[in-house]
Amino acid sequence: MTQTPLVGVVMGSKSDYEVLQAAVDLLKELAIPFEARIVSAHRTPDWLFQYAEEAEQRGLRVIIAGAGGAAHLPGMLAAKTLVPVLGVPVPATMLNGIDSLLSIVQMPKGVPVGTLAIGKPGAANAALFAAEILAAHDADLRVRLREWRAARTQEVMAAELPL
Amino acid sequence: MTQTPLVGVVMGSKSDYEVLQAAVDLLKELAIPFEARIVSAHRTPDWLFQYAEEAEQRGLRVIIAGAGGAAHLPGMLAAKTLVPVLGVPVPATMLNGIDSLLSIVQMPKGVPVGTLAIGKPGAANAALFAAEILAAHDADLRVRLREWRAARTQEVMAAELPL
Amino acid sequence: MTQTPLVGVVMGSKSDYEVLQAAVDLLKELAIPFEARIVSAHRTPDWLFQYAEEAEQRGLRVIIAGAGGAAHLPGMLAAKTLVPVLGVPVPATMLNGIDSLLSIVQMPKGVPVGTLAIGKPGAANAALFAAEILAAHDADLRVRLREWRAARTQEVMAAELPL
Amino acid sequence: MTQTPLVGVVMGSKSDYEVLQAAVDLLKELAIPFEARIVSAHRTPDWLFQYAEEAEQRGLRVIIAGAGGAAHLPGMLAAKTLVPVLGVPVPATMLNGIDSLLSIVQMPKGVPVGTLAIGKPGAANAALFAAEILAAHDADLRVRLREWRAARTQEVMAAELPL
Amino acid sequence: MTQTPLVGVVMGSKSDYEVLQAAVDLLKELAIPFEARIVSAHRTPDWLFQYAEEAEQRGLRVIIAGAGGAAHLPGMLAAKTLVPVLGVPVPATMLNGIDSLLSIVQMPKGVPVGTLAIGKPGAANAALFAAEILAAHDADLRVRLREWRAARTQEVMAAELPL
Amino acid sequence: MTQTPLVGVVMGSKSDYEVLQAAVDLLKELAIPFEARIVSAHRTPDWLFQYAEEAEQRGLRVIIAGAGGAAHLPGMLAAKTLVPVLGVPVPATMLNGIDSLLSIVQMPKGVPVGTLAIGKPGAANAALFAAEILAAHDADLRVRLREWRAARTQEVMAAELPL
Amino acid sequence: MTQTPLVGVVMGSKSDYEVLQAAVDLLKELAIPFEARIVSAHRTPDWLFQYAEEAEQRGLRVIIAGAGGAAHLPGMLAAKTLVPVLGVPVPATMLNGIDSLLSIVQMPKGVPVGTLAIGKPGAANAALFAAEILAAHDADLRVRLREWRAARTQEVMAAELPL
Amino acid sequence: MTQTPLVGVVMGSKSDYEVLQAAVDLLKELAIPFEARIVSAHRTPDWLFQYAEEAEQRGLRVIIAGAGGAAHLPGMLAAKTLVPVLGVPVPATMLNGIDSLLSIVQMPKGVPVGTLAIGKPGAANAALFAAEILAAHDADLRVRLREWRAARTQEVMAAELPL
Repeated sequence: MTQTPLVGVVMGSKSDYEVLQAAVDLLKELAIPFEARIVSAHRTPDWLFQYAEEAEQRGLRVIIAGAGGAAHLPGMLAAKTLVPVLGVPVPATMLNGIDSLLSIVQMPKGVPVGTLAIGKPGAANAALFAAEILAAHDADLRVRLREWRAARTQEVMAAELPL
Repeated sequence: MTQTPLVGVVMGSKSDYEVLQAAVDLLKELAIPFEARIVSAHRTPDWLFQYAEEAEQRGLRVIIAGAGGAAHLPGMLAAKTLVPVLGVPVPATMLNGIDSLLSIVQMPKGVPVGTLAIGKPGAANAALFAAEILAAHDADLRVRLREWRAARTQEVMAAELPL
Repeated sequence: MTQTPLVGVVMGSKSDYEVLQAAVDLLKELAIPFEARIVSAHRTPDWLFQYAEEAEQRGLRVIIAGAGGAAHLPGMLAAKTLVPVLGVPVPATMLNGIDSLLSIVQMPKGVPVGTLAIGKPGAANAALFAAEILAAHDADLRVRLREWRAARTQEVMAAELPL
Repeated sequence: MTQTPLVGVVMGSKSDYEVLQAAVDLLKELAIPFEARIVSAHRTPDWLFQYAEEAEQRGLRVIIAGAGGAAHLPGMLAAKTLVPVLGVPVPATMLNGIDSLLSIVQMPKGVPVGTLAIGKPGAANAALFAAEILAAHDADLRVRLREWRAARTQEVMAAELPL
Repeated sequence: MTQTPLVGVVMGSKSDYEVLQAAVDLLKELAIPFEARIVSAHRTPDWLFQYAEEAEQRGLRVIIAGAGGAAHLPGMLAAKTLVPVLGVPVPATMLNGIDSLLSIVQMPKGVPVGTLAIGKPGAANAALFAAEILAAHDADLRVRLREWRAARTQEVMAAELPL
Repeated sequence: MTQTPLVGVVMGSKSDYEVLQAAVDLLKELAIPFEARIVSAHRTPDWLFQYAEEAEQRGLRVIIAGAGGAAHLPGMLAAKTLVPVLGVPVPATMLNGIDSLLSIVQMPKGVPVGTLAIGKPGAANAALFAAEILAAHDADLRVRLREWRAARTQEVMAAELPL
Repeated sequence: MTQTPLVGVVMGSKSDYEVLQAAVDLLKELAIPFEARIVSAHRTPDWLFQYAEEAEQRGLRVIIAGAGGAAHLPGMLAAKTLVPVLGVPVPATMLNGIDSLLSIVQMPKGVPVGTLAIGKPGAANAALFAAEILAAHDADLRVRLREWRAARTQEVMAAELPL
Repeated sequence: MTQTPLVGVVMGSKSDYEVLQAAVDLLKELAIPFEARIVSAHRTPDWLFQYAEEAEQRGLRVIIAGAGGAAHLPGMLAAKTLVPVLGVPVPATMLNGIDSLLSIVQMPKGVPVGTLAIGKPGAANAALFAAEILAAHDADLRVRLREWRAARTQEVMAAELPL
């Protein structure tokens, strides 16, 4: 990526990448400049704060943050920046992600996190949501996004059931 | 509001306004042009589609959609527009909003809804999230948003516990 | 199927057919004319509306709709037709179908969806429920349905435990 | 009601009528002949069996059954008749109806219960679902049902938010 | 078994035996005369009623009933007999037995079911609970039961951890 | 009560009596000799052990134990006696008794607790279950129990709905 | 309090004090020097970090942190200090504290939070747990703690049921 | 271990060691003297009481107790000693540990258990929490603990994503 990243994809641990890769893949497919980093709320809290504090001036327009269990990463990033933060609950514990979902979505009044579905569908949708935000000021991206959606519609219309 | 609305606040029934008012109040406080409408996925599906189809050309930059129970409004709006849709789960049934939360957040890959917390905190945060999106291209709003946050910080720092 | 279908079996994606096949198998076994289609609420919303709008005039007497996650297909079909809609929650996410169940069953007053169990048992029972509706005006089907049930009773009475 | 009832509304205890009244009111509004009875699965099991065994010959076309807690009434009725049974989970315990919902909806393959939402919305929708079934062979009822829905649409379109 | 059975072990389907075998094994180990049968609440409701009606006169002192999903077997047996009924929730659906647990344990006032844990531990404990009931009037069984427990204590005291 | 108590009703705190009174009332109504005591697993563990150790020799035939939150009383009593222990989950926390239900019912293999419904219905049913156990060797009680049930059936048959 | 505080009681908002007061009251009763502050993870993240960074050198031996909803305060404090952090889930949303419980307790490996029960019982127990930690090196406190427990035992033994 | 153990690691059954080994491994890594034992609340209640009664005089400073299902071990130990008890919910049943979590954490006022996450992360964190408690009076351990944490931070900072 030689362009300045517009989207920052961060995750609490390397193992979360299995889920977050779905976001990365879609950002690539839509040709949106991005970066991906491991930022752990609990193991690297200072790095988390630094990342959030620099996000706006570094040109990030959206942050996609995935985490599992007691998932504090998206909310703490959102507490430290005005860049919109999208949260992806990662199913990393015995509770299948319901713990991460509630840890991310139930933010109190004052600091929002736009939360997506648990796991890979949520990661892919976070990238699409970021694309929707960016497309408001990027007509080319809007076209790519519209085409991506149209291709999904075509897939459904063309599918055959093995009756 | 004489300005073209940038944010559309829609809800499935009039009774949902008790929750969505928290979004309306914050949009007013931040001086963001908005409109508020009742759009029921189940009782007015055609109106839902029309609303979503016209949203982009009418200049809406964000849609905030609140609904309770089997809450299909945010997801169906998102299926019909590329304008970012924020979903607010309304606690309208015996299940305290966990049904609406799951109905809104668990969208399959392809159509994202940025979901906020159940009830009033989520409604307020939807407005703040919309503000964060708009602030990227509106320096004045960014200042107002920063000040709003700073005021919240001050509130906490100034509060006294009745020990 | 040369006869006009009386039951429409629709599902949100091709992968849902693993579950919905249980409905198709029973409709075949009971010799009820049916059709099966992929109709995605989120990827093909217009096709969903068209399907629902034409259902009554095309002679469909019951629609069986299966979907997973934030399952909006059954409720949105029901919003657009007076043909009875049966909903089958598909376990498509980490939450094992509890999200689809709540997304389908918790419909607000005004638009009903008759909801069956999560997964294959629910799909099979949707076919049986459709048969019960149709049997009121089809004495032959009533006989076949009664025999099907009697065979199930016989199965239980004849089973042996490996004590 | 001098006409032969087409819909039987049954409930596990007198206190459930607070919820089931929503079904009764809608059946009256749609002028559908009905009867309403208390039939307890646990306190009057023989009466339950008799009710189910006689339902078809007495001309009942749909049974609406509401019950709370470990709600066995709808499923046991369905086990004893081919008349379609609609189940309404009543929130009668500390668990707000999630226990009744699961006790009603999670029927194994072979005996279907079309389940509606927990509480009053589910009771009202059970009546509407019964009306949809009956309307297939009653053009007048179909008109009344269509008008009822249209009135709901009008209500939404005419509502004003107190902005 | 040449002796009159004192405990009846019943289950809703043959596949439930994988769980209920834990009860059968313990009854054998404790030398308690028993019988085991498939009795399906939904597929063989009349057989269920007959089984319950004859239980007392046939000399059954305890009934152990296991079922999955919307598990109506234990509660309906209890509605038809004064012989104590023990319920074992079988994990037969996507919901891991929480549906069967609630369907069995949440009985309304008037008809009790003594409910055990989900799955095999619950099945084994149902047999032990039956043994406790019978041991009040069977000194030999009381000795066997006491020895069985003492052996469990010994197992724990003798176990070594692979530190 | 001048007779030796056959049933011991114990509860973790005085406030639990609001729920357990339903058991006491039914034991009185059925003329079963009983005692009622506060025994706290956490605040009086030694008294708990003493109560359990003496239960059998003091002539107790059944112990009914109610507790809320992390409800350890029924299981620990059961660990210390062969007298059958019935557990009543008391809704004492914000979680409406689901915590007590799971803490009581999910006993591992080896030590059974026959668990009843959450709250007052469960307390009443614990008394009825105790009565069923005792009635096996008490023909008079069996008659009273049968009459009690018949009265419940009559109540249902005689009830009128305010249609 | 003229003594250096050994326990820091912090909470996310002033309204949480209704719950945390139970901790404060017990610390006073046990004569443990403490301080109480509002520290919001989301509204005052920098103040949170400062508080955690200074805790050890300021002499704090235990931190009690209460928060509701997506409760990030205890975990983020624990990420920034080696002083033991006790977490108290506050029931501040429609979900009755299950969201805060999971947000606090489900910490990933590396950063522990000792979590107590939801609400006031948890707040009181956090103070008692802090006392247990401190009592290891404070014989007088150990005596007071032992007496406090003995008084609880006496309360139970002296209580009378209104039979 | 020739030193007097400071931490007692106990678990309800040998199979729990798969989870609790994570605690043992960390205690070894941090060179904290410990012992590990099987203590079953239900199969060896007297041994449980003895263990708790002797803990303080034997020099144990922290007890780590893991158990599954209806997990009574941590709470009953805490009821019998003033040594701080840390509870580790073991996922031993079909409910994935949510039953053990609630059985451990929802202790009533008066007897605290510091609860960690479900499964291995919770076991590891229990050891870290014990280390934090002990480190207050052991400067060398404090150094080792600080270094352990710093190594975790380094791991995150050095990790590379396979973009």
